[in-house]
Amino acid sequence: MKTDTIAAIATAMGNSSIGIIRISGEESIDIVDLIYRNKKNERVLKNFKTHTIHYGYIFDGNEIVDEVMVSIMKKPNSFTTEDVVEINCHGGIIVLNRILETVLKNGARLAYPGEFTKRAFLNGRIDLSRAEAVMDIISSKNETALKNSVKHLRGFVYKKIKSLRENIIFEIAFIESALDDPEHISLDGYTDKLYIKIKDLINEIEKLLLSAQNGKIIKEGIKTVIVGKPNAGKSSLLNLLVGEEKAIVTDIAGTTRDIIEENINIGGVNLRIIDTAGIHNTEDMIEKIGVDKAKKYIEEADLIVYVVDSSVQLDENDFEIMKMIENRKSVVLFNKSDLNANISFEDFIDKAGDDSIMIKTSTKENTGIDEFEEAVKKLFFKGEISSDDEVMITNLRQKEALEDTLFSLQQVKKSIEGEMPEDFFSIDLMSAYASLGKIIGEEVEEDLVNEIFSKFCMGK
Amino acid sequence: MKTDTIAAIATAMGNSSIGIIRISGEESIDIVDLIYRNKKNERVLKNFKTHTIHYGYIFDGNEIVDEVMVSIMKKPNSFTTEDVVEINCHGGIIVLNRILETVLKNGARLAYPGEFTKRAFLNGRIDLSRAEAVMDIISSKNETALKNSVKHLRGFVYKKIKSLRENIIFEIAFIESALDDPEHISLDGYTDKLYIKIKDLINEIEKLLLSAQNGKIIKEGIKTVIVGKPNAGKSSLLNLLVGEEKAIVTDIAGTTRDIIEENINIGGVNLRIIDTAGIHNTEDMIEKIGVDKAKKYIEEADLIVYVVDSSVQLDENDFEIMKMIENRKSVVLFNKSDLNANISFEDFIDKAGDDSIMIKTSTKENTGIDEFEEAVKKLFFKGEISSDDEVMITNLRQKEALEDTLFSLQQVKKSIEGEMPEDFFSIDLMSAYASLGKIIGEEVEEDLVNEIFSKFCMGK
Repeated sequence: MKTDTIAAIATAMGNSSIGIIRISGEESIDIVDLIYRNKKNERVLKNFKTHTIHYGYIFDGNEIVDEVMVSIMKKPNSFTTEDVVEINCHGGIIVLNRILETVLKNGARLAYPGEFTKRAFLNGRIDLSRAEAVMDIISSKNETALKNSVKHLRGFVYKKIKSLRENIIFEIAFIESALDDPEHISLDGYTDKLYIKIKDLINEIEKLLLSAQNGKIIKEGIKTVIVGKPNAGKSSLLNLLVGEEKAIVTDIAGTTRDIIEENINIGGVNLRIIDTAGIHNTEDMIEKIGVDKAKKYIEEADLIVYVVDSSVQLDENDFEIMKMIENRKSVVLFNKSDLNANISFEDFIDKAGDDSIMIKTSTKENTGIDEFEEAVKKLFFKGEISSDDEVMITNLRQKEALEDTLFSLQQVKKSIEGEMPEDFFSIDLMSAYASLGKIIGEEVEEDLVNEIFSKFCMGK
Repeated sequence: MKTDTIAAIATAMGNSSIGIIRISGEESIDIVDLIYRNKKNERVLKNFKTHTIHYGYIFDGNEIVDEVMVSIMKKPNSFTTEDVVEINCHGGIIVLNRILETVLKNGARLAYPGEFTKRAFLNGRIDLSRAEAVMDIISSKNETALKNSVKHLRGFVYKKIKSLRENIIFEIAFIESALDDPEHISLDGYTDKLYIKIKDLINEIEKLLLSAQNGKIIKEGIKTVIVGKPNAGKSSLLNLLVGEEKAIVTDIAGTTRDIIEENINIGGVNLRIIDTAGIHNTEDMIEKIGVDKAKKYIEEADLIVYVVDSSVQLDENDFEIMKMIENRKSVVLFNKSDLNANISFEDFIDKAGDDSIMIKTSTKENTGIDEFEEAVKKLFFKGEISSDDEVMITNLRQKEALEDTLFSLQQVKKSIEGEMPEDFFSIDLMSAYASLGKIIGEEVEEDLVNEIFSKFCMGK
């Protein structure tokens, strides 16, 4: 069956040196051949070899639209595995639109968002986890996230899931064969072996799910809220943190423009700090009137930074805050440690759980900041962020599939423990196999595929 | 002398499918060879032929930064005429920055804005008028402007100026030779011939200067202000005009975001309408208090659209406005023509000059809009916008050089009329020759070159 030839602008819109129109499909070379001429005004596109670049002009009828470089990548060695032509033109909005229009007028169809990558997937060049990695690379907000996404693109997730699936399908096949042909294949003692294997599989899935915690944080940053009574040093702390990191933050102009938050980078991970002081300049966050708002911010945060003025006695407001951060990941900063202390760690120790770390700081003398950064790493990454070999799940869809897998495997474990017949194992193993398949796009319904690719930007 | 190898991000910044890092200079291939590997992890860049594209990875040390396509264009057949390598990577801000950093770390220098195009000029691939056309194509705001800039890029201005200069240098050479060698070359009767030629040249330069009027308007749009008494129909008119053209305007998202003006397109040219009603919601533009502001807007505008409610008598405010638009390009709209008329064209005819056109409109019944558009074309382009063969000057620098040329040629004409000796002609002809040279970048001081290229965007 002949598929449509699709086209889209593949570079960001804005005035720049170069812009690219990408065209993919059986007719891509024929279509561009209609509108491209070399500098001798010859129509020669069809003579070009694959993976070559050619200078010339794009014509709309007799009118020259732009001076361009045209690249040809013939099937199957292209992004989509189809014939792909890329027109590198000048990077103006009008000129990009004009060339795209000319391409569409000559027979291509405007691509849907993500349609190029979808074709790469449907044509078998990449699996679903790699397709999602393309999107993650483009939108990555920090270098750690980028690094992880590139790993996904290189098939780290695919290989891991593939190997887990192979283990599972082997067991299914064995059980089914034994049930079909009990005379030749015996299930004696098999249940014990399977039990051990299932526990190993559960262990591996749990490890992947744990990585999804880190993965989400690496991808999206740690949502942090700073709370504390007036004059405890909240703003000084923020200025200190942001000031030190400002150079890194401003590397990426415009990324935080529309969000009322500060971003700082700790060991390659973004702390997205909701500056409660900044939001509520006129009213105080923690004094009675602000408690409801404080609660809301604290509930939504991944991390609570509670700044205490250690030179003054605790009061009912502090006890209120302590209640709110119970059992939450938090760092309590005993600030103004340069002054005489009127409270100590002991005042907090009963209230604070395992996920609370106490540190003495002085924003005035700039002490305790390193300890604060160490505390964040400890709370979120047990001291270090992702070893290089680790596969980290960053995608909510993939995480949910892993949770389904875990559930099915736990069912198998229960069935074994309850001494159920072997065909019970087989059904749940098949569910686990199917759930893992969703991650890499094997045995996935068409609807899900469409949904995933619609998240992509145009031209990809 | 060995020149630096320069690098920059050549595509617009924003999340998109593709981004490009461009590298140019003697060491560009060596530098990218240090960081590029093919899919078999081989270091093979130096084996590649010119104008070919290659799949692979960019490495920063042992870490893979992204999956890329690398294009090689060897000297002299490249944008700069130097060895050029382009790295097509995923179009994310972080990934583009990371690859650029890696390229810089391995020996390239960050390019100055416009430095790639500057090298194309300095290396003799394009003249100055074509270099400026590159910038104009990128920033073109409408299709007519784009079309004109592409003509410039193809050397239309260059060829025109070149031919004018050849005519002039021929005369200079003839005069100088005759003065040097009066025995063999006679100047008898020459002055009469020269006089005719100079008049032709003046004529041609004047035509080019006239095109600069249109050129500016095509490039920047017609600055339009709508004035009129309250309730005359200013806002209805604007809504009608903008409503009809909205589709075109919104094609280019964000271009007018920060400017308090509406853009509409008439025959390929932008009308940039200062909506006085929009700016001054609470005060009226024309009632006494607003007269000063109205004056200011009217002074700065290329076109004044004066909306009159034709169903009511004129009053002193109208006479005030009439005075302000005297001898200015204006369209007077006799609005509410669906009601009984209480004023007629005759009331205006004495006041209006040649540059004022009167039209009956009814924004209620949607009549007179076509006539309005025709009126604008007539006022600015004598009915039609630029024939295809015409060279149109859009650049202020080029316009100033043409004015200098005109001045020098007029001096020659005066000298002939005043029967001055021939060496007087020669001096002014030389000035005209030099002024024309500035347009295409021949005999131009280094400072001017730097100034022109610093206007360019990065990566170009």
